[in-house]
Amino acid sequence: MTTGFQTPQDAEDAFYDAFEAHDLEGMMAAWDKSEDVICVQPMGPVLQGTAAVKSSWQAIFRHQSKPDVEIGHVQWFEREGLAVHVVQEKVSVAGMPEDLPPLVATNVYRLAEGGWRMVCHQVSPPPPRLQAGRIS
Amino acid sequence: MTTGFQTPQDAEDAFYDAFEAHDLEGMMAAWDKSEDVICVQPMGPVLQGTAAVKSSWQAIFRHQSKPDVEIGHVQWFEREGLAVHVVQEKVSVAGMPEDLPPLVATNVYRLAEGGWRMVCHQVSPPPPRLQAGRIS
Repeated sequence: MTTGFQTPQDAEDAFYDAFEAHDLEGMMAAWDKSEDVICVQPMGPVLQGTAAVKSSWQAIFRHQSKPDVEIGHVQWFEREGLAVHVVQEKVSVAGMPEDLPPLVATNVYRLAEGGWRMVCHQVSPPPPRLQAGRIS
Repeated sequence: MTTGFQTPQDAEDAFYDAFEAHDLEGMMAAWDKSEDVICVQPMGPVLQGTAAVKSSWQAIFRHQSKPDVEIGHVQWFEREGLAVHVVQEKVSVAGMPEDLPPLVATNVYRLAEGGWRMVCHQVSPPPPRLQAGRIS
């Protein structure tokens, strides 16, 4: 995969497939190859450039179990050559509580050299839960 | 201001000026008028639509002191009609510690009816601090 993906959604599918499979090569194939890429993991610092992005996924894949990720589309903003997908990520990991609220991610895809790839992924932690019995 | 702003940066300047001034009218003038707008405050839920976005800023302006906000540009992704600005927000509020690490925001602007306005604002809380004496 050297020319990117046919659509932003194809790049997004490849990204989350690689996340679930802990496939580092597949993960980096979903990302743009330029040094302007940005990744912000939940409660994490701003990571800039492919080396920093790759290191962060390598650490996640090394230290966490493979997750099951269910994506809910919240909103898309798309124009010629640039696409923003706001999604909710319901991440389930064996041994973790099953009813955790979803994370929110803003994913940005860019068309370059005939293909779409991810250039920005920012994830926010879910809101803190209220008291038991109230809406989380 | 019914036609939006000349550039994404003009819309961004209006957004942060309104945030600092607690100017609700100015804040909502920076936002697109359509129902697909998205706002995620730090540790907050996904807010969708202008009414929800307006309510969240109203609550912030009512319950918090006026902040001083210093913006550091991290990365821009811009194409015809759509612009993504990733920025660091150094927010200072009287009575709060001065050395808090910056927040990270992804701001999305869209060109419609001849003007640019914000359609998406997602803010992530800063990484938790490490032990005193280590890099935060």
